[in-house]
Amino acid sequence: MPVNSRPARGMRDFLPEDVRRREYVIAIVSDVYQRYGFEPLETPALENIETLTGKYGDEGHALMFKVLRRGEHEASGETDLALRYDLTVPLARVVAEHRGKLPKFFKRYQVQPVWRADRPARGRFREFYQCDVDAIGSRSMLIETELCAAVSDVLMALGFRDFVLKLNHRRLLTGVLSSAEIPETLHGAALVAIDKLDKIGIEGVRAELAARGIASTSAERVLEVFAGGLDLQRARDVLAAVPDALAAIGELEDIIALSAATSAGPYLRFDPTLARGLSYYTGAIMEIAVPDLPGSLGGGGRYDGLIGMFLGEDIPACGFSLGLERILVVMAERGMFPAHVQRGVAAVLVTLFEGEPAEEALRLASELRAHGLRVELYPEPDKLGKQFKYAASRGIPRVAILGSDERARGVLTIKDLTTGAQTTVGRAEAPAALGAVDET
Amino acid sequence: MPVNSRPARGMRDFLPEDVRRREYVIAIVSDVYQRYGFEPLETPALENIETLTGKYGDEGHALMFKVLRRGEHEASGETDLALRYDLTVPLARVVAEHRGKLPKFFKRYQVQPVWRADRPARGRFREFYQCDVDAIGSRSMLIETELCAAVSDVLMALGFRDFVLKLNHRRLLTGVLSSAEIPETLHGAALVAIDKLDKIGIEGVRAELAARGIASTSAERVLEVFAGGLDLQRARDVLAAVPDALAAIGELEDIIALSAATSAGPYLRFDPTLARGLSYYTGAIMEIAVPDLPGSLGGGGRYDGLIGMFLGEDIPACGFSLGLERILVVMAERGMFPAHVQRGVAAVLVTLFEGEPAEEALRLASELRAHGLRVELYPEPDKLGKQFKYAASRGIPRVAILGSDERARGVLTIKDLTTGAQTTVGRAEAPAALGAVDET
Repeated sequence: MPVNSRPARGMRDFLPEDVRRREYVIAIVSDVYQRYGFEPLETPALENIETLTGKYGDEGHALMFKVLRRGEHEASGETDLALRYDLTVPLARVVAEHRGKLPKFFKRYQVQPVWRADRPARGRFREFYQCDVDAIGSRSMLIETELCAAVSDVLMALGFRDFVLKLNHRRLLTGVLSSAEIPETLHGAALVAIDKLDKIGIEGVRAELAARGIASTSAERVLEVFAGGLDLQRARDVLAAVPDALAAIGELEDIIALSAATSAGPYLRFDPTLARGLSYYTGAIMEIAVPDLPGSLGGGGRYDGLIGMFLGEDIPACGFSLGLERILVVMAERGMFPAHVQRGVAAVLVTLFEGEPAEEALRLASELRAHGLRVELYPEPDKLGKQFKYAASRGIPRVAILGSDERARGVLTIKDLTTGAQTTVGRAEAPAALGAVDET
Repeated sequence: MPVNSRPARGMRDFLPEDVRRREYVIAIVSDVYQRYGFEPLETPALENIETLTGKYGDEGHALMFKVLRRGEHEASGETDLALRYDLTVPLARVVAEHRGKLPKFFKRYQVQPVWRADRPARGRFREFYQCDVDAIGSRSMLIETELCAAVSDVLMALGFRDFVLKLNHRRLLTGVLSSAEIPETLHGAALVAIDKLDKIGIEGVRAELAARGIASTSAERVLEVFAGGLDLQRARDVLAAVPDALAAIGELEDIIALSAATSAGPYLRFDPTLARGLSYYTGAIMEIAVPDLPGSLGGGGRYDGLIGMFLGEDIPACGFSLGLERILVVMAERGMFPAHVQRGVAAVLVTLFEGEPAEEALRLASELRAHGLRVELYPEPDKLGKQFKYAASRGIPRVAILGSDERARGVLTIKDLTTGAQTTVGRAEAPAALGAVDET
């Protein structure tokens, strides 16, 4: 009896073509991050539930996949483990656990799946990959600058040219809110509303601020600041009385000036309404936008309070998270994958005939593989036409035919399925004729 | 207050050096499998619990990590998902779910973690990677032959030369048991005992067979067959009356003869006591042994009944699973990792001085990275000695010094920390002097 064979809700099987696209992007991300001195880290999919509890708010806790205790405790319904919800809390745990072994400046990247029981939607899955890069241990603005440069290099290496790297500062935002006399308890609510300015416009934000309990006089003062298009010079004037905000502006000016010496320069843009959802940011915040995608391809910022949570001390940290699934969606829609990524299957099919010694086909396949070629051997004797058809259906461009005639003459017949041309070459020339780049 | 920062029981954090070793092995495994025409597949970590239930026996079910239903159902203690327990059941599910899109011969490899709540022990973890390779859709012995060749190529590419690829056949084993009048219901128990012959010897197996309820006359007949060292010729004589066993011997002879034309030839050895624990095998079975590891580095075989379970039909299949963790253990103990795997960190540290423009250091780092070098920029102005010490502690072999003097002269000073030598080179020569291979 056939059984349900679907993957679990909100999760996906990645067939070969999908995997090749994912691996292509991940390889570029990893390569660029390594060029910036970041090193790879991996943590377990499961964490002790206490490690994750209280880190993501009530909403996050509800979306967490929790694992039942095993054995005699199974019936109790108790949980002791949960699936990784992001890559930042595990990083904080690793910094505490292995601090004796880690360098003074710990620069790591991590590309692994996370799990959230969100309602599935277009481009939103319950298992999805994050590509995180974080530098731990320094408060220097060179950290922000190098992160912006690394992320820009990743996007350029993937073929993006039309992205914007938005930049803002949490303490500039809180400076605006404080100067508009919005109490600190409402800062979070106000930031969520302001963050939507480019989506819902001034009127929309005004309504949202009111709905979130912010006094209309305060709301008007905030809107006045943002409405005019705030540049850093005007921000200095508006916030002249808020020393903390002036310090934040100084940091942004440093990042922008330093970035002129890096690849991020042309892409970086101060955006005073960028707020970023997460509450843990303490300094500069960044986000990547492309014109054809609502939302962002990734974002990050400085968060000096979080990494030390397991140690009970503040440790400076700044990081960036790229959303692999969103990058893949945009790249697929724009046709940005190079041809070789599509072409991962075998380069050659070696045929097999009834009554012919299979050893000869095996030996030919071995020879070609030793030259680095990807070779599939048809596993059963079959009509040549069927073997051609199989190769074509798999996108294998060439078929190698080694019949008794070819063997007697010490040659190989090669059928090119893209052109239909058939040629005969000496055995020694076969690897090159089939596209091998000599590795010896 | 410091909090528990350990990973969950039986699970591991992989620090950069660990990840580099793992990625090195996985890259070789993937590359060889691709040369044999296998394509990558990935499936979700979580499966619907019905997908996994009843597939691994009672013991397997107890070791499965089960996930609590979410939201309002959380309090019920009910589970609806479980973590992947192996890579074979997900493959069977994928074959059923995507059969319209898969080729007639589906050859896939899959390198992903699985989770089992086994009692942790040396080399036994609760999260561990399997490297599976399977060919679906053909009963030809060329499939077994190519799998043996691919696995041998993987091990040779990793540097192994002293492995043995043991070969046996399930139907030969059941032929021996049947001819010794052991009832079919006791075959499984008998196989487990026989599988231990090289560990516990004839006396040990005799005791085990008795303990498992096998009559002593039957046990003696079985031991007689195995004790003398059974080769395929003697097996033909002993099992002359068991047609099914003779067919099995014919298949083994085919695999051995065909393998002489492949890289597996010198490593393949008929081992009549090889039994393999899993019950689902229906044909040839294989296992890799190295002298310095009890147990195996991996194993596999033909299992024609399992893949079609979601479709309700038999689909021929043959596969092999390599144990990544065991391969890593042996390679680490033997020192088999090449130097470049250890040396994944940055090739150069660019220094930063108080009062010097950081833009210059950033520009230098960008230049060097554009030449493919891995470059770390020291993020804060500091004493030169401290920056040297940091580079040395991280294993970064060279430090690039760009002080005001160097800038004025358009040169760069390079300190080689392995020799202590200090040289000065022109800016244009810097990438090559620091080890860049020109990519342009």
